[in-house]
Amino acid sequence: MNKIAAFLGLGHMGAPMAYNLTKAGFLVKGFDPVEALLQASVEQGVEKCSSAKEAVKGADFVISMLPSSTAVEYLYIDKDRLLEDIEKQSLIIDCSTIAASSSKRLLSAARDKGLHAIEAPVSGGVKGAAAATLSFMCGGEHEDVERAKTALQHMGANVFFAGPAGAGQTAKICNNMLLAIHMIGTAEALQLGVDNGLDPKVLTEIMSKSSGANWSLQTYNPYPGVMDSVPSSNQYRGGFKVGLMCKDLGLAQQAADNSKSYTPLGSLARNLYGLHSLKGNEGLDFSSIQTIYRKEADK
Amino acid sequence: MNKIAAFLGLGHMGAPMAYNLTKAGFLVKGFDPVEALLQASVEQGVEKCSSAKEAVKGADFVISMLPSSTAVEYLYIDKDRLLEDIEKQSLIIDCSTIAASSSKRLLSAARDKGLHAIEAPVSGGVKGAAAATLSFMCGGEHEDVERAKTALQHMGANVFFAGPAGAGQTAKICNNMLLAIHMIGTAEALQLGVDNGLDPKVLTEIMSKSSGANWSLQTYNPYPGVMDSVPSSNQYRGGFKVGLMCKDLGLAQQAADNSKSYTPLGSLARNLYGLHSLKGNEGLDFSSIQTIYRKEADK
Amino acid sequence: MNKIAAFLGLGHMGAPMAYNLTKAGFLVKGFDPVEALLQASVEQGVEKCSSAKEAVKGADFVISMLPSSTAVEYLYIDKDRLLEDIEKQSLIIDCSTIAASSSKRLLSAARDKGLHAIEAPVSGGVKGAAAATLSFMCGGEHEDVERAKTALQHMGANVFFAGPAGAGQTAKICNNMLLAIHMIGTAEALQLGVDNGLDPKVLTEIMSKSSGANWSLQTYNPYPGVMDSVPSSNQYRGGFKVGLMCKDLGLAQQAADNSKSYTPLGSLARNLYGLHSLKGNEGLDFSSIQTIYRKEADK
Amino acid sequence: MNKIAAFLGLGHMGAPMAYNLTKAGFLVKGFDPVEALLQASVEQGVEKCSSAKEAVKGADFVISMLPSSTAVEYLYIDKDRLLEDIEKQSLIIDCSTIAASSSKRLLSAARDKGLHAIEAPVSGGVKGAAAATLSFMCGGEHEDVERAKTALQHMGANVFFAGPAGAGQTAKICNNMLLAIHMIGTAEALQLGVDNGLDPKVLTEIMSKSSGANWSLQTYNPYPGVMDSVPSSNQYRGGFKVGLMCKDLGLAQQAADNSKSYTPLGSLARNLYGLHSLKGNEGLDFSSIQTIYRKEADK
Repeated sequence: MNKIAAFLGLGHMGAPMAYNLTKAGFLVKGFDPVEALLQASVEQGVEKCSSAKEAVKGADFVISMLPSSTAVEYLYIDKDRLLEDIEKQSLIIDCSTIAASSSKRLLSAARDKGLHAIEAPVSGGVKGAAAATLSFMCGGEHEDVERAKTALQHMGANVFFAGPAGAGQTAKICNNMLLAIHMIGTAEALQLGVDNGLDPKVLTEIMSKSSGANWSLQTYNPYPGVMDSVPSSNQYRGGFKVGLMCKDLGLAQQAADNSKSYTPLGSLARNLYGLHSLKGNEGLDFSSIQTIYRKEADK
Repeated sequence: MNKIAAFLGLGHMGAPMAYNLTKAGFLVKGFDPVEALLQASVEQGVEKCSSAKEAVKGADFVISMLPSSTAVEYLYIDKDRLLEDIEKQSLIIDCSTIAASSSKRLLSAARDKGLHAIEAPVSGGVKGAAAATLSFMCGGEHEDVERAKTALQHMGANVFFAGPAGAGQTAKICNNMLLAIHMIGTAEALQLGVDNGLDPKVLTEIMSKSSGANWSLQTYNPYPGVMDSVPSSNQYRGGFKVGLMCKDLGLAQQAADNSKSYTPLGSLARNLYGLHSLKGNEGLDFSSIQTIYRKEADK
Repeated sequence: MNKIAAFLGLGHMGAPMAYNLTKAGFLVKGFDPVEALLQASVEQGVEKCSSAKEAVKGADFVISMLPSSTAVEYLYIDKDRLLEDIEKQSLIIDCSTIAASSSKRLLSAARDKGLHAIEAPVSGGVKGAAAATLSFMCGGEHEDVERAKTALQHMGANVFFAGPAGAGQTAKICNNMLLAIHMIGTAEALQLGVDNGLDPKVLTEIMSKSSGANWSLQTYNPYPGVMDSVPSSNQYRGGFKVGLMCKDLGLAQQAADNSKSYTPLGSLARNLYGLHSLKGNEGLDFSSIQTIYRKEADK
Repeated sequence: MNKIAAFLGLGHMGAPMAYNLTKAGFLVKGFDPVEALLQASVEQGVEKCSSAKEAVKGADFVISMLPSSTAVEYLYIDKDRLLEDIEKQSLIIDCSTIAASSSKRLLSAARDKGLHAIEAPVSGGVKGAAAATLSFMCGGEHEDVERAKTALQHMGANVFFAGPAGAGQTAKICNNMLLAIHMIGTAEALQLGVDNGLDPKVLTEIMSKSSGANWSLQTYNPYPGVMDSVPSSNQYRGGFKVGLMCKDLGLAQQAADNSKSYTPLGSLARNLYGLHSLKGNEGLDFSSIQTIYRKEADK
């Protein structure tokens, strides 16, 4: 018998994830308050629902992919109170990247109602969502995460168990803070090399085989022309937007604030991305940070 | 017939490099002003010379591994004037990490005397020197770099041609600046995770398979107990010293200054390593930067 | 007729403020959950109350000086629900430094109950509290701030009207972020001068009369021995503690996060103070940041 | 009898300084390789010389105001070898802001030839030069500095004796590094306040009377409209150019490098000014750093 999944939030990430579930034979009942998004998913085989409440009826999995802590808390607890409608056999899988404190609140509120819920924020971006190569960084009860794999395996390549409630969110923001740092570091190193006469392709090749090696340099090079098929060679269009990186770096700083941890490089990365976004670059790919290091013609 | 190499500078790096050459059948004529270092190499098969001048006689390769720009310029040009003694058939290979401007001066002065010289700073540390897995980042004439491989192949695993004089030094300091940045970034991300309840091994595993992946995290993890056989699991002894990282980051800042390049993360990395070194940590491995993020008992 | 003031929170700041009010002829009804603090104020002429509820009876002014947003919200709204006991003729003056959002909530909740309230966080420290030279940075209705001066004038030298609810808190954290930045900047400039052979007194005198002039340099010099009667000449004891500066810098970062403002220097100042506090320096005066720049004997 | 001064370098700073000397009754013999600059000074009463060599004949004071270490070393030592032409009775006063090491070299080379020389870099900018309110930060022999006052008193308001050769340059760059830090800090605090609803004039007034007080806030406010007659209210024209601040911050970093001092805020200030200059702002006043914090319409 086919599995039934409610899918709430059908944006850039949610839509391809839901589509991958339908291709795997799931009956996917979708809802998004934006009619155009909902319609687009319906054309890809998702069953149209007129509300979140309708979508969760009879679901084995209730999967959500929402843009903010507030959106998640409104949906499940404070406004739509969806936890009151979700049935006991359902497993809630929240894939949104939100504050660990919000995620803990959701999982705790679910447990209070006798429901099972995990957090499963993702890494891999729109490309990973389309190709079903996402990584899920899961927090919650171990057996719930195991059970979630039935659905997650069709949307991604890796399912990590990070620990109890909040641990998945923490792993996600630690990862993305580190990503921001080595992306900016890579941009600085490449520009320094170029300004001193090096060919960015040669420098990339050398550092990739040396101790400077990192994901940004090797798979997502920010210097235009070094790699094909990455945003830097397409005017920084597509990919993982500066605005979203700013959001994740903000969550990292909140986490650091709560635990009295200090992250000078992480904070500076946040500020550099923030200043970059203020200048109208919020919608560009995050590797566009390369451009702040480039000399412009005098005004 | 066996090749003849003069080897000048037999410290932590030079000694194992010279030893590897002897094992490959080279006749290695060594000199170091520190008698104890010279003697140690002699016991490993290096032929003892009483001066650099004596060592370079009849050499196919004159290899130097010295601690600073000044040391290199003194040896070849300003004080020992070794360029006047080196023979036409010799190829000078300076493996020291020094300012690109100093290296350019050396290569230019050699050319003025009808000599051939390249720069070949290394990456890989004492461990790489011992295991003959160093990377050489070469600058100079392409054919000279090709010729140098006869010797370099026995001391390392990769020989990169970065470009003309200075390009090898530039590649080296770009790489090491990037290394410092992702080492510190990795330390911050791990501490942030731990402070929020994550297991550093689990977090390392997750980020290693995600976009946070980088050399520091995956092969040289700074958090004690995550990996065996790295300095962090040996009280940060051995490895690549904080003092040497400070030196390389200083060279990176000089290069940036000259080319009017700006590197906010690189500069902050330099300052954090510098402040760390001021507190008596100059001799620890550079992954010991992890300790600045750890709470100490109140004084 | 004498004015009546309830005073809630009799710690390092609250106690001398309450005492100054008694000296000005106010009947001060005090409460603090810590018995020893309450008793100490009673010995200085404050009338002992066994609860906040008892203290506010018949008060013209209800003044609070509490350590955190949570403490303020618990007292007035969420736990002790003191707003239900405060009488219509009372003016609430909250002198605590808290998040602007918390302060707005308090003023709004008071207005909903027909009460008048302002925020009046202070600058000037324990010394200013004792000498009645504090500056109050007030937010709320202009006429309420005017009315508050009857009390505030006896506890401080300046009463600023910053704007509507939240504006006083914002002014306070902007000021303290700027203070942190020029304190650290002053420490860096003095150490750089000393390391290059200058006398810190001479350098202080020169910069004080030049464009480097600032409050930290001129009135609160962080370099030991330059000024008498400041914490740096008393082993950094007394004054404004590192832990409190960390708190204020945390509030500044929260404000920046909410308004999508970016403050690279402010964030770095926060991280440097945070790392300093982790090493057991939380209780020292904030000018002790000077010590992070000083070379220590090798371990 | 009138004093005779040679004045070498008649740019934005040198020209008004030379003019002030003529007004004080000095015979000023001027030279600048740029004919237009020389001619402009001649129209203000400076005697035209066709070379530096001609200018120094019979001079009581040889005053130079040049743009870089290289320019000073070329003039006096390496190229024009002016030290060979300067007469024994002359006192050399180099007002250029250059590396302490270059200045030490000049003073030492002068002494070797039996000449007297001091360094006297200035603070106060073009405005101070015109108004004769400059501060001179002098290094060298104390009696030489005393003697220099005969000339300096007509060009400035303060003559500081910082210490031996190099001390004046060090004081200057420490001051300007601190200036850069509190200018940027002021810009961040003002923007943070404005973004949270404060009036920048009110915030300036409050912080000026509180612990945030500093020269940038109070006399050179970077927020447009807060003060009249400052560059921020004139589209950041005039004043102290970004390019010159970058130069001074570069000298500060070189000094820090030499003395193994670390200045995280100073380095970040340098990088922020550097990135600002790359975007075509090199010719604007340095208070224009305010603009990097301002949101621009999306591209």
